[in-house]
Amino acid sequence: MENNKTVKSITSQSDDFASWYTDVVREAKLCEYSSVKGCLNYLPNGYAIWENIKNSLDKKFKETGVENVYLPVLIPESLLQKEKDHIEGFAPEVATVTHGGGAELEEKLCIRPTSETLFCDIWQHMVKSYRDLPLIWNQWNSVLRWEKTTRPFLRSREFLWQEGHTLHATPEEAEERTKLMLDIYYDFVTNDLAIPLIKGQKTESEKFAGAEATYTIESMMKDGKALQSGTSHFFGSGFPDSFDIKYLDKENKLHSAYETSWGLSTRIIGALIMVHGDDNGLVLPPKIAPTQIMIIPIAQHKDGVLDKANSILKELKDNNFRVKIDDSDKTPGFKFAQQEVLGIPLRLEIGPRDIENNQVVITRRDNGEKITISIDNLTESINEILEKMQSEMFEKAKNLLDNNIRPATTIEEMIDIDKNHKGFIKAMWCGDEKCEEEIKNRTNGYGSRCIPFNQEHISDKCVCCGKDAKDMVIWAISY
Amino acid sequence: MENNKTVKSITSQSDDFASWYTDVVREAKLCEYSSVKGCLNYLPNGYAIWENIKNSLDKKFKETGVENVYLPVLIPESLLQKEKDHIEGFAPEVATVTHGGGAELEEKLCIRPTSETLFCDIWQHMVKSYRDLPLIWNQWNSVLRWEKTTRPFLRSREFLWQEGHTLHATPEEAEERTKLMLDIYYDFVTNDLAIPLIKGQKTESEKFAGAEATYTIESMMKDGKALQSGTSHFFGSGFPDSFDIKYLDKENKLHSAYETSWGLSTRIIGALIMVHGDDNGLVLPPKIAPTQIMIIPIAQHKDGVLDKANSILKELKDNNFRVKIDDSDKTPGFKFAQQEVLGIPLRLEIGPRDIENNQVVITRRDNGEKITISIDNLTESINEILEKMQSEMFEKAKNLLDNNIRPATTIEEMIDIDKNHKGFIKAMWCGDEKCEEEIKNRTNGYGSRCIPFNQEHISDKCVCCGKDAKDMVIWAISY
Repeated sequence: MENNKTVKSITSQSDDFASWYTDVVREAKLCEYSSVKGCLNYLPNGYAIWENIKNSLDKKFKETGVENVYLPVLIPESLLQKEKDHIEGFAPEVATVTHGGGAELEEKLCIRPTSETLFCDIWQHMVKSYRDLPLIWNQWNSVLRWEKTTRPFLRSREFLWQEGHTLHATPEEAEERTKLMLDIYYDFVTNDLAIPLIKGQKTESEKFAGAEATYTIESMMKDGKALQSGTSHFFGSGFPDSFDIKYLDKENKLHSAYETSWGLSTRIIGALIMVHGDDNGLVLPPKIAPTQIMIIPIAQHKDGVLDKANSILKELKDNNFRVKIDDSDKTPGFKFAQQEVLGIPLRLEIGPRDIENNQVVITRRDNGEKITISIDNLTESINEILEKMQSEMFEKAKNLLDNNIRPATTIEEMIDIDKNHKGFIKAMWCGDEKCEEEIKNRTNGYGSRCIPFNQEHISDKCVCCGKDAKDMVIWAISY
Repeated sequence: MENNKTVKSITSQSDDFASWYTDVVREAKLCEYSSVKGCLNYLPNGYAIWENIKNSLDKKFKETGVENVYLPVLIPESLLQKEKDHIEGFAPEVATVTHGGGAELEEKLCIRPTSETLFCDIWQHMVKSYRDLPLIWNQWNSVLRWEKTTRPFLRSREFLWQEGHTLHATPEEAEERTKLMLDIYYDFVTNDLAIPLIKGQKTESEKFAGAEATYTIESMMKDGKALQSGTSHFFGSGFPDSFDIKYLDKENKLHSAYETSWGLSTRIIGALIMVHGDDNGLVLPPKIAPTQIMIIPIAQHKDGVLDKANSILKELKDNNFRVKIDDSDKTPGFKFAQQEVLGIPLRLEIGPRDIENNQVVITRRDNGEKITISIDNLTESINEILEKMQSEMFEKAKNLLDNNIRPATTIEEMIDIDKNHKGFIKAMWCGDEKCEEEIKNRTNGYGSRCIPFNQEHISDKCVCCGKDAKDMVIWAISY
């Protein structure tokens, strides 16, 4: 079969990956552009994925002592300007409120592009003694950055995320929290989203505005490009010092405090689409899918079919599966295509002959495999299938990642890989920003994604300038 | 004992109810003003209450088919102006973005004061046929209204809420949804928050800008004032018609669509404080309390006390209670006061003598009752105590409400009640807005809160003008 596509309005990945992506977002009704340029409407199908991400992550956060808060959508201009590097990083992207209630404001207000300054502003008057520390706060909110070019989920002016902000008595404790949160992201994205990752540290030029160190998890899309999937920042005491946040220790001595922040956004839905999706649409890992099983009755007008289908629906619901039934008057073929576009992990067919044989037919969304199972141990069988599907989806993505990271020892090799392959390059680097720039310019835009924690020794020399190498860096074209 | 107060920094309710309120909000660390005038920082203790409200309501919504979405924080000025009554209602309260990314915008953007126009803007291109209906959408977000005077939770420029928006093929179906959502609010607020309510319809002058009918739930605070606790609006086809939203029925005929919207906000936390709170601080109903039980070990340095306290903590956690332990080096008296300020329903004391007797001592926050229970059936006993507390808190509040609604047949009687009592007045009304105005002016600001669904016949004549009465109205001073 040359063309596996059941939905004709989706471009093939091999024809045009970018068009494929926007087609899937549209056909699965995940989100759409609103009438405000660059801002999205998150529609029910897309928002339900975000809700599952949020619920799962929030639970993991709280197990480590995170408390949720909500701070204002507006930041006074003077407050945003308090930390020098920070405002330099964000000033060009800020939207400004100049009028409120019909009158011009005395001071302009910015719509938050991120909330470090607001957190510090609270802590300034709240933190006095070592007893007030640590503060381990997080908020689920939206932020606004005036981007010039936008793409659904990947880059939009307003996007949804969580931003965690913590304050500690010692740099060691803050560093530990920074890494703990990166580990939580890593576990969540690999286990729940079945997306394999590279964990590492950003180079100086790629780190967050105002941070001392930025840690990241990087994933590979099916087109070989990288997507930064979550970041965790160690601020040292720079930010708190700018806000004059100091605490008294047990001996009544005054000390600086140490800050972290960490965030994961709706971009991750873009990764979910581009790591697992295929020419028929979305493919969602069972653990995160809003609907895990779609029951489709066959010959549903025949005696007993709908009754049986509904009793299966009830049984599966009672056993905590996220399950729906499509008993509309559309044809089974149309329903199959719909379930595929939406990426629902399992299709469950039940018709008169199945009832006779006391069975149902399950079809896996990820590989099309058909499995006939007995009605007598539905829960157990489906649990097994879902678990197997989850781990096989991860393995498949892991193979893609592993098979598409290629070593290079010279810039010519990099240019060659760039021409002939998709994927990442691993190569040594001297630590000089100029080499990062040169590599970007001489290739088709390969940037440093991270200095991975798992280092390999590829050569002694920087891939670009030939001087002594410091670290192995992962290079890639990125979203 | 003349003064029951254990926390000296809280003003007595009887001395000054307004100061008591702000003291409780501050001492329980629920929220505080931010550096943006009129905008709040929702701190962990306050936000945790909102999270519980959100989780409980969201579950109830979804059981009736509600789907969550997220629409932009910004609305183009021209879009907000599309429905005439609506913009007249909101124009004076809007904050406006004029600059983005350093450049002046071609069209001003408003920070959403509410999102009816955004929903209609999507539906305009989405709804074509009867098959596309109904749409039952909701979002949990923040909105901004440029209020002149603000009070924590009760009135702030930015506040958190949910706004549900639905679109239907017939007015009957839309009316049914409007009332269904009011019923969900009613059940949630009475059952989970233990706040008794009056359910009814707003008069013409009090209804939502652009709505055909507004339904409301009204509660009574301990100072006798009313607080609008949730509203549900029927828009008819006015709003959809302004946006040219039409659908084709089965016979291919074009029809208007019918809209509803409904919202409940962080104001309800203000009600929670003012309905149940006392001179020692917050009193939270068990069903909504972020922490239900605070374990306080007595003589915790003695052998075995902390071990036993921690094993009780584990047992209660395993049985799904929301429970914490305070094993800090503060004195028990200080811990007791803290638990009281925070409104934690139960205090559980365990000391050496309790261990000897295989018992713990429970103290109810709402009435101070001390109950000694055996360690052997902790879960069962505590469940019983929490359930009893929940229903008794409701009864207590219900008595306050029932005992403070007084009938009046003349405006002189109303003025007299206003002078000598706190609470609501029930009186007949002719339906004329002028009478509403006059009553407000001649009393200390008694406005029409609602035309309750449960009507009583108090007299034949309007309490104000003496003309034939149409409905019994609940009148009150309101927050």
